[in-house]
Amino acid sequence: MAQDVRIGLLGHGTVGAAFERLLAERADAVAQLTGRRPELAGVLTRSRGDFDEILERSQLIVELIGGIDPAREYVKRAIAAGCHVVTANKQLLSRHGEELWSLARERGVLLGFEAAVAGVIPVVRVLRESLAAAHIERIHGIVNGTTNFILTEMTRTGCDYGEALAQAQRLGFAEADPTDDVGGADAAAKMAILARLAFGVPVHIDDVRCEGITQITSDDIAYAREFGLSLKLIGTAERLTDGISVRVHPAFLYGGHPLASVGGAFNAVTVESSAITEITMSGPGAGGSQTASAVLGDVVAALGGARTLAPPLAPLPIVEDVASAFYLHMEVDDRPGVLAQVAKLLGDAGASIKSVVQQGLGGRAQLMMVTHPLARSRLQQALAAIERLEHVRAAPRAISVINEEFV
Amino acid sequence: MAQDVRIGLLGHGTVGAAFERLLAERADAVAQLTGRRPELAGVLTRSRGDFDEILERSQLIVELIGGIDPAREYVKRAIAAGCHVVTANKQLLSRHGEELWSLARERGVLLGFEAAVAGVIPVVRVLRESLAAAHIERIHGIVNGTTNFILTEMTRTGCDYGEALAQAQRLGFAEADPTDDVGGADAAAKMAILARLAFGVPVHIDDVRCEGITQITSDDIAYAREFGLSLKLIGTAERLTDGISVRVHPAFLYGGHPLASVGGAFNAVTVESSAITEITMSGPGAGGSQTASAVLGDVVAALGGARTLAPPLAPLPIVEDVASAFYLHMEVDDRPGVLAQVAKLLGDAGASIKSVVQQGLGGRAQLMMVTHPLARSRLQQALAAIERLEHVRAAPRAISVINEEFV
Repeated sequence: MAQDVRIGLLGHGTVGAAFERLLAERADAVAQLTGRRPELAGVLTRSRGDFDEILERSQLIVELIGGIDPAREYVKRAIAAGCHVVTANKQLLSRHGEELWSLARERGVLLGFEAAVAGVIPVVRVLRESLAAAHIERIHGIVNGTTNFILTEMTRTGCDYGEALAQAQRLGFAEADPTDDVGGADAAAKMAILARLAFGVPVHIDDVRCEGITQITSDDIAYAREFGLSLKLIGTAERLTDGISVRVHPAFLYGGHPLASVGGAFNAVTVESSAITEITMSGPGAGGSQTASAVLGDVVAALGGARTLAPPLAPLPIVEDVASAFYLHMEVDDRPGVLAQVAKLLGDAGASIKSVVQQGLGGRAQLMMVTHPLARSRLQQALAAIERLEHVRAAPRAISVINEEFV
Repeated sequence: MAQDVRIGLLGHGTVGAAFERLLAERADAVAQLTGRRPELAGVLTRSRGDFDEILERSQLIVELIGGIDPAREYVKRAIAAGCHVVTANKQLLSRHGEELWSLARERGVLLGFEAAVAGVIPVVRVLRESLAAAHIERIHGIVNGTTNFILTEMTRTGCDYGEALAQAQRLGFAEADPTDDVGGADAAAKMAILARLAFGVPVHIDDVRCEGITQITSDDIAYAREFGLSLKLIGTAERLTDGISVRVHPAFLYGGHPLASVGGAFNAVTVESSAITEITMSGPGAGGSQTASAVLGDVVAALGGARTLAPPLAPLPIVEDVASAFYLHMEVDDRPGVLAQVAKLLGDAGASIKSVVQQGLGGRAQLMMVTHPLARSRLQQALAAIERLEHVRAAPRAISVINEEFV
């Protein structure tokens, strides 16, 4: 007869309820695998349960409350009591991860967090284990399902941002207050965690440069299609000569990029390293039973003796001014010489132009370009100069283009 | 100072040489992670080295010889000597896996085999660990890069099988004797291993029904495109009501399937389970440094105390007669009533028709259909009857269609 392991569950929303169901359903399978049969010791919600009593009865705590307080305190006390902890809390880990991982190492327990990033995609495990000894150069991720759903809808139907958001809310892919998703903060927290794993150095959410999708227009999406580009909210973590860059912003992808075909509320992560070339993993980004399944995977890992994250290496500088190719969109007067003026200012800033489309609209014209890579700061100088030109009618819009062309 | 761990390397072909390089390059990273610094204790090739001497000096054996003999004997002796073993040998594991895993469990060592399946894609680890407690319903995989390259070339250029094979050989994606790849045996060995992991039951390569790509014509590919289908060599492992089915055969995919966009020599695997919906992982299927990276991941796992595969559950029956949708291609006389005769015979066998295209070619016509799912045995009965019709000019051709339509 397998020995029991008693699990205290903090939080009983969509994921918590799904975890309770999944645990009951899979308890035999876990017992067969690990020799220990998991059993719920207690559930804490806002209206019922007492943390101290649950902790007293538990050997493993699953934290699905979210947010910093009181989750941080509960996780610390559970670790101090010698419990393994499994959490889906990206906010907590992107702000206080090093403190908590360090406590878990000292106490010899696992602090598992597969469910905090990219839903059911096992990217945390793959980075921590399969690629532990690889020299990872870059990660690109679509790590927020809400924004990917919205951008997919805008692309598919040509509707504007507000309509797509409303549709996402109707279908349950966006919350009533979508700020954390559409502003990029949710993706930034996840990218901080992925960068910590990929490079082995401390990364705080405040290190992540972050821009959301609220300014995207359906025009941007339609025009960029002429260049074969599709728009995604992309999280990037990359090594550069003089440090690392971790950032989240809208970016255009060429059709051959492994993330270009990831639509709807799906998530996907591409990991690049010279030894492996690249691995892409994709799957549903959220959903109660999907996240619960990632939590259960960590429970099994904890029972199988998995160790918590190794201590971080010395921090690397955060590089702010990163080079990128850009898609540019300008409204200009449709008259001779305007393109030449714009091209000259870009050339002066070191931006060479890969392709141009000009569309006349009677008096006005839309000028769209894709540049070769240049530093963001130099592009911004050029755009400031272009905005001052007599025949340029509005501030130019610039969106990064991920320039690698894949098989 | 980290303690050393001495590694004996058996085989020094493309992967072996790449592993030696990668090990030297990443030894510090491995030491930082595991507290033990790996060091090569010796290399065995056909012309140099002595197995007994290498085993004597080693604590971990990396087996990259391939084939059954002498690899099987070496692996057994290494395990008996208390060494961890890491292997990329799919033939060996698909025939003698249970014997070797059982020996490794008894001796308390790891027998790691991530590199045996799907190159750098960490599907073995994800199935063994992240999804260990999940109830996996189905796996679809493109697990042979050579055949995927050939089918991608045929689709891209319209060339026939022979030309695409020659091109693959020129570019190093196919061997001089491509039998194991194009006949499906390589993919069958990998699917046997994946099915063992997914369902936890013994699966031998002889349990895998296997059909290669040598009979595929460029016409099949071109016509099927009219239905929005693309052709891949697909490995399938699935649970059915009365057992499991593991098989490898050419199959058409609809455009929205996550494997449809996997081109060239890439591999990809989709895992389906009701709790997770699906996860897809893709990456380069072969290549020295990619496979070496998977081997190194297993070396790190061995040093980190990973355990070998759990004992299998009781075997499940292998179901031979599996239902599928089919693409059918017939050459018929272009005259009234022929379609009706064909449709009647299909209907009598229980095959309902999803779509039909008939193309007249002056006297002759090509008749292409896609059916709804039916048992393969019933389809074969219908095809035998159709072949006997007066106005049917050649044996009808049938290729499976994977019928799930994805987001």
